[in-house]
Amino acid sequence: MGRVGATVGATGEAEILRRILSRLPASAAVVGPGDDAAVIAAPDGRVVATTDTLVHGPDFRLAWSTPFQLGWKAAAVNLADVAAMGARPTALLVALALPDETPAAFVEGLADGLAAACAELAPGCAVEGGDLTVSDTLTIAVTALGSLDGRDPVRRSGARPGDEVRVIGDLGIAARGLAVLFDRFSGPGGEPLPVTAAALGALAPDAAHAVSRQLAPRPPVAAGADAAAAGATAMMDVSDGLALDATRMAQASGVTLDLERSTLGEDAAAALTGGEDHALLLTVPPGTTSAGRRIGVVRERGAAALTVDGVAYERRGGWDPYRDWDAGRG
Amino acid sequence: MGRVGATVGATGEAEILRRILSRLPASAAVVGPGDDAAVIAAPDGRVVATTDTLVHGPDFRLAWSTPFQLGWKAAAVNLADVAAMGARPTALLVALALPDETPAAFVEGLADGLAAACAELAPGCAVEGGDLTVSDTLTIAVTALGSLDGRDPVRRSGARPGDEVRVIGDLGIAARGLAVLFDRFSGPGGEPLPVTAAALGALAPDAAHAVSRQLAPRPPVAAGADAAAAGATAMMDVSDGLALDATRMAQASGVTLDLERSTLGEDAAAALTGGEDHALLLTVPPGTTSAGRRIGVVRERGAAALTVDGVAYERRGGWDPYRDWDAGRG
Repeated sequence: MGRVGATVGATGEAEILRRILSRLPASAAVVGPGDDAAVIAAPDGRVVATTDTLVHGPDFRLAWSTPFQLGWKAAAVNLADVAAMGARPTALLVALALPDETPAAFVEGLADGLAAACAELAPGCAVEGGDLTVSDTLTIAVTALGSLDGRDPVRRSGARPGDEVRVIGDLGIAARGLAVLFDRFSGPGGEPLPVTAAALGALAPDAAHAVSRQLAPRPPVAAGADAAAAGATAMMDVSDGLALDATRMAQASGVTLDLERSTLGEDAAAALTGGEDHALLLTVPPGTTSAGRRIGVVRERGAAALTVDGVAYERRGGWDPYRDWDAGRG
Repeated sequence: MGRVGATVGATGEAEILRRILSRLPASAAVVGPGDDAAVIAAPDGRVVATTDTLVHGPDFRLAWSTPFQLGWKAAAVNLADVAAMGARPTALLVALALPDETPAAFVEGLADGLAAACAELAPGCAVEGGDLTVSDTLTIAVTALGSLDGRDPVRRSGARPGDEVRVIGDLGIAARGLAVLFDRFSGPGGEPLPVTAAALGALAPDAAHAVSRQLAPRPPVAAGADAAAAGATAMMDVSDGLALDATRMAQASGVTLDLERSTLGEDAAAALTGGEDHALLLTVPPGTTSAGRRIGVVRERGAAALTVDGVAYERRGGWDPYRDWDAGRG
């Protein structure tokens, strides 16, 4: 079987690993890939560590995502979790479980996406280890490590009455992109249809932008450490929608977060319910001059953990990114 | 639906997470489970990090493994990789991808196995984070972190002519157990049959022991840091069989490893080819008084990377743990 069109199964593990490593940036670690484990610098004597998995079906569809976008997204969602602690990402470990019939070129595209996300979102962070196994279900499990560089971790439990509520990054864009995908790139039986360049070009520019952010989110990774340095009292990654994640922060902190609808853009409902943008939600002492845009204020805990303009927030409709997700896979 | 027999899908993510966490030992971390990321102590300014995944089908069969054994094995194989660098495991992150129809009790058993492996093999190491997702294929991706406590990492490339070759742990037992499983616990079509207590009791004691080590290996985790302290020059986890892994060490070090057949027990072929025991293979300066049992010597690189009693090793048969692995799944 020739190189073009060769599968992972026909190419073999050693050659697939060689191709992946050849596309990744040089190791920045004490010990990089190739031994039983990597050794990563943890300069202040602590390491931030998180893991997040993308599974074919629930988390992505091969008809919609390019391999590059998948690699990018797998890195980005983990880098965002490191940033949300106020840390600087230092290394990724990537465990790939691939069907034997996966094209070798797919894995190369995935490696390119991992490398690009590290280079653009977290310079200095590289893939320092991983694992390659066979599976019936394409699965990308990434672990991200990071350094607090001497700062305290910024937890979701630190919001205090009087703090301002702020956000850094997009709200509702990725969910709009998913709505466009379901609306414009699904067949009569709900099966996903390929997202071609021509079809993307036929979309309104903001719709095409939303699709690209759904498939390859750009979390404000560097802003996490900056916000910590500026004095953020609480911070978290907005992965499940602002309303749900703000409620979690309020509960962890024992306070009420009161959001201001006028700050949430033309479609406040979409900003409140749309997930997967991986913006940073944070609280800061009043008057902090940097660290995001104001969207509300922290109050003593009232009857509701989350209010909007002082009224208890009750979700009414809005886009649910998980609705119908299992209707078609491809 | 009542609690007994409830599935993961019916129970819901939050409740499944609560049950997992309730069965794990208390966090020993700066920040444990529940935030965007964990924060783990890295007392000497470096962290050892490795990831290894178990996938239903290629890596385990539900008819053969109990949930407890699966959790144990997922922890053990990762703890072994940390130990092989000469490090002390400090934390695990566990990413579970589960079919919706997985029984909730299965996840509880898995958590018990993770906890027991940490307690028995690596006291002080706990599960400090993780991820729970839906998948068609049951997948357990574990990341293990560790501390070198000021020592240099022991790489596979450090073997020097004149060093002794040593091993700590079993060779060939886990592969024998897999052979027993295929021989005694497979149906006429190759489908796996349940490993009941009664059926195990009917086996010869050494066969039953081999099965138990295949399903729940006991790598000599604490011995890794001890060997590093004793001066090991190279070390690695024996996961793919002594012959293959010793060849890898020889190639990484630019030397020849000459093994002594008389040291390999009654069935030297099984010791050379059987994988999955997760013994430690290491080299030490001659005369080192602790750190394993001698199985050979390091020589200047000759024509062959691996020799046995001075003769180039060529694998002839022996048990291949991956042969027929895809013949049946269950």
